[in-house]
Amino acid sequence: MPAIGVAYLGPVGTYTHQAAHQKFGPSAKYVGQDTIKDVFNSLSPTIPFGVVPQENTIFGSVIETYDQLRHSNVGKGLFVVGEVTLGVQHCLLARKGIPLSEIKDVLSHEQALGQCQGFLSKHLPSARQMKMPSTAAAAEAIATSEEYATSAAICSKICTTVFPELDVLEESIQAMNGIDTDSSGLGNRALIRIQHSDGARTSDLLLPLSVIDLGVSRIDRRPSLCGNPFEDMFFIEVFQRSEGSKWGDEVSDAMQRVMKAGWKACLLGIWHC
Amino acid sequence: MPAIGVAYLGPVGTYTHQAAHQKFGPSAKYVGQDTIKDVFNSLSPTIPFGVVPQENTIFGSVIETYDQLRHSNVGKGLFVVGEVTLGVQHCLLARKGIPLSEIKDVLSHEQALGQCQGFLSKHLPSARQMKMPSTAAAAEAIATSEEYATSAAICSKICTTVFPELDVLEESIQAMNGIDTDSSGLGNRALIRIQHSDGARTSDLLLPLSVIDLGVSRIDRRPSLCGNPFEDMFFIEVFQRSEGSKWGDEVSDAMQRVMKAGWKACLLGIWHC
Repeated sequence: MPAIGVAYLGPVGTYTHQAAHQKFGPSAKYVGQDTIKDVFNSLSPTIPFGVVPQENTIFGSVIETYDQLRHSNVGKGLFVVGEVTLGVQHCLLARKGIPLSEIKDVLSHEQALGQCQGFLSKHLPSARQMKMPSTAAAAEAIATSEEYATSAAICSKICTTVFPELDVLEESIQAMNGIDTDSSGLGNRALIRIQHSDGARTSDLLLPLSVIDLGVSRIDRRPSLCGNPFEDMFFIEVFQRSEGSKWGDEVSDAMQRVMKAGWKACLLGIWHC
Repeated sequence: MPAIGVAYLGPVGTYTHQAAHQKFGPSAKYVGQDTIKDVFNSLSPTIPFGVVPQENTIFGSVIETYDQLRHSNVGKGLFVVGEVTLGVQHCLLARKGIPLSEIKDVLSHEQALGQCQGFLSKHLPSARQMKMPSTAAAAEAIATSEEYATSAAICSKICTTVFPELDVLEESIQAMNGIDTDSSGLGNRALIRIQHSDGARTSDLLLPLSVIDLGVSRIDRRPSLCGNPFEDMFFIEVFQRSEGSKWGDEVSDAMQRVMKAGWKACLLGIWHC
């Protein structure tokens, strides 16, 4: 049997790569993509799964992912089928043999640099901080470019398996503790995309919400694709308040009520976590 | 009487500058700031007003603005006191005497370039497109740098008053029509920031929403500042469904109900538009 294909937001060694590994294990065939849009576009019978970042606890929702969820193929051929909560542990990596005291520059994605300011100002106060397109790109730069031979990268530990010439100098250097995945709550979930049928600015979002009658854990808002100013799409993540009845039926009934209230509703996915 | 001080997201000639002019007129003293955060921080007895972008119809909410609204001084000393809806009309500007046929490069902010792709591919298919930090920075570059003497900038018309050496080659070149400000709806509005008291991932957002009993026009979600993973702040923009009663009392009563449902609530502002 061929390995299952999984697209993810690359390059090799990103936190999305790590999340994909956590879900699909070592035997899947991982295909890194340059952008979140590319992950969506690459899905096919041979690459049936894609992993994209939805949110991080410091910088919030990932706009590019929600923008892709606006397209009509999501909810038809493509569906959300699961979620992974990853306790992001930033590590400080450097080439083997380079001690902390010799580090001149620290490279990482802007967000990761921001999350590690406490560590950096305490332990590397005079190191220059350089922004890179991703944490994995920072690891690649210090591993492969002589210019950065005495630099460190802030990135995921997985980068040491991708670049064996690198070592971990420090683990878990971010401001916030890692996420306890249990605290994120277990249960049945679904994602519903709703939009007012005529989309005026004064559409009252309470009308569909007041009839949903499911738990609501997230609401995200993006401009719709139709071109009318201030016509929004809302992404409502719902959860089952108490088990017992069939979750699929509960969601389906809720969508019927939303549509009776004059709003369009499309089920983007249903999953258990 | 000294002119009223108004801080805005600069530099001179941005759409935020234009929105500020629309609200405060020609006699105010405008103080451009480098960042949205700087606009908030610059407010003082001599600069009592600030203008920041909240949303545009193509790219959605402006994250940096909502992030500033998370801070506890908003809703105490600082309040949202009004809104301006601006029909953004991108213009193509060049130095006086340079015709469209001689344009080699087009400079603008990435979003504005994106919004004008239709015009550019039709009228300037071979011009190089160059990203600049803002539309106003593009205007400044073509006005002041000899390197860009035969370049055009996509920006607001206001830039021709800031840089009199520039002329408008084309007006309203964006994909979408300007916004009819009337369509955005008039009436009484308020912005309320809510947060669950203990902030679990499965906090049911329907509990406070179902008791608000006001019109809800916008819901935005940002990570809270407390450091707990997935503890969100929600920004609920509400509107008065029918005039008659006192809007301030309606909002105050709604907030009491939200707090009784176990959520924190803070009034960030109340205004008429």
